[in-house]
Amino acid sequence: MNASVAIQTLPEAKDDEELIRIVDEVIAYIKSTGNNYYVGPFETTIEGDYDELMDIVKECQHIAVKAGAPSVAAYIKVSYKPEGDVLSIERKVTKHHQ
Amino acid sequence: MNASVAIQTLPEAKDDEELIRIVDEVIAYIKSTGNNYYVGPFETTIEGDYDELMDIVKECQHIAVKAGAPSVAAYIKVSYKPEGDVLSIERKVTKHHQ
Amino acid sequence: MNASVAIQTLPEAKDDEELIRIVDEVIAYIKSTGNNYYVGPFETTIEGDYDELMDIVKECQHIAVKAGAPSVAAYIKVSYKPEGDVLSIERKVTKHHQ
Amino acid sequence: MNASVAIQTLPEAKDDEELIRIVDEVIAYIKSTGNNYYVGPFETTIEGDYDELMDIVKECQHIAVKAGAPSVAAYIKVSYKPEGDVLSIERKVTKHHQ
Repeated sequence: MNASVAIQTLPEAKDDEELIRIVDEVIAYIKSTGNNYYVGPFETTIEGDYDELMDIVKECQHIAVKAGAPSVAAYIKVSYKPEGDVLSIERKVTKHHQ
Repeated sequence: MNASVAIQTLPEAKDDEELIRIVDEVIAYIKSTGNNYYVGPFETTIEGDYDELMDIVKECQHIAVKAGAPSVAAYIKVSYKPEGDVLSIERKVTKHHQ
Repeated sequence: MNASVAIQTLPEAKDDEELIRIVDEVIAYIKSTGNNYYVGPFETTIEGDYDELMDIVKECQHIAVKAGAPSVAAYIKVSYKPEGDVLSIERKVTKHHQ
Repeated sequence: MNASVAIQTLPEAKDDEELIRIVDEVIAYIKSTGNNYYVGPFETTIEGDYDELMDIVKECQHIAVKAGAPSVAAYIKVSYKPEGDVLSIERKVTKHHQ
């Protein structure tokens, strides 16, 4: 796969419960795309095709708004290598979770 | 305008001159979109319509690759408020540059 | 100078006016350190000695709390080159603001 | 605990193997501090006392330099709530890894 992106979607929310509820909807959307993903404390990483990943990243904020957020902030990291592979999630984290 | 995004496009480059040359092409592309923008030391901020800005953000990495980068990293910040206005670049920085 | 850092201090605040008031106190603190700095829409960049800059970055959140924020988020970028110079703010932005 | 920070230390390295070797030394250092931490694909999250975490974040780049990196970039996220608790790593990720 040629890209890996990490996204923190940060909805405006009245309390932590509301925040978590909205973020869970965003994560459910990411899961529904069928790409390999990894949920971390601040951000969720997704790997796949660059153009598709950037469309997913764009949609995440729409999902947060539909879930009730009046405004949304997001912090996104991108790693893109058109020819060849970026480092996989598996290679980066597996040995540290054993 | 309902959104403001900041993007740092970080192309793989053999030296600082090459890096600056590629980043300048990305900034020229951002300028060509006609949106209000602001170049900072680490990132360029653009304000306008959320969907359009996210498409521009996606294209920035394609521009870097076309300009010669074998791989690209990017760091993106998003502020999006579908109803109403986000804080403008002008309101955020003008008083600090006088 | 061997380092350049950019910091976005994001205090919890009841409205935009309160947010701007607290962020202005953080920027006033950064100015008071005597280092070269540059205010952008999302983050303020400071250049100087790495260890000193990281101490300033740490203090920024204390300043926000003293100014009234019950909680604070921050997003920080670091560029550090112990031998030699990182790209200066001046070299990165001046030509784009003429 | 009053804070949670996430850090991506990005050493200059001649290839992926060298990059991973250096990042592993940074992660080993974080582990050695005794704080609760969580390794993700782009960043490692640590939770504990704000001042101590910021000192650890500062040291990470020194570790990368000692491990051979001629220059280092870093991307850091901070969540700090002086009175009370920030959301824990456990609360944020556990249900998504079952």
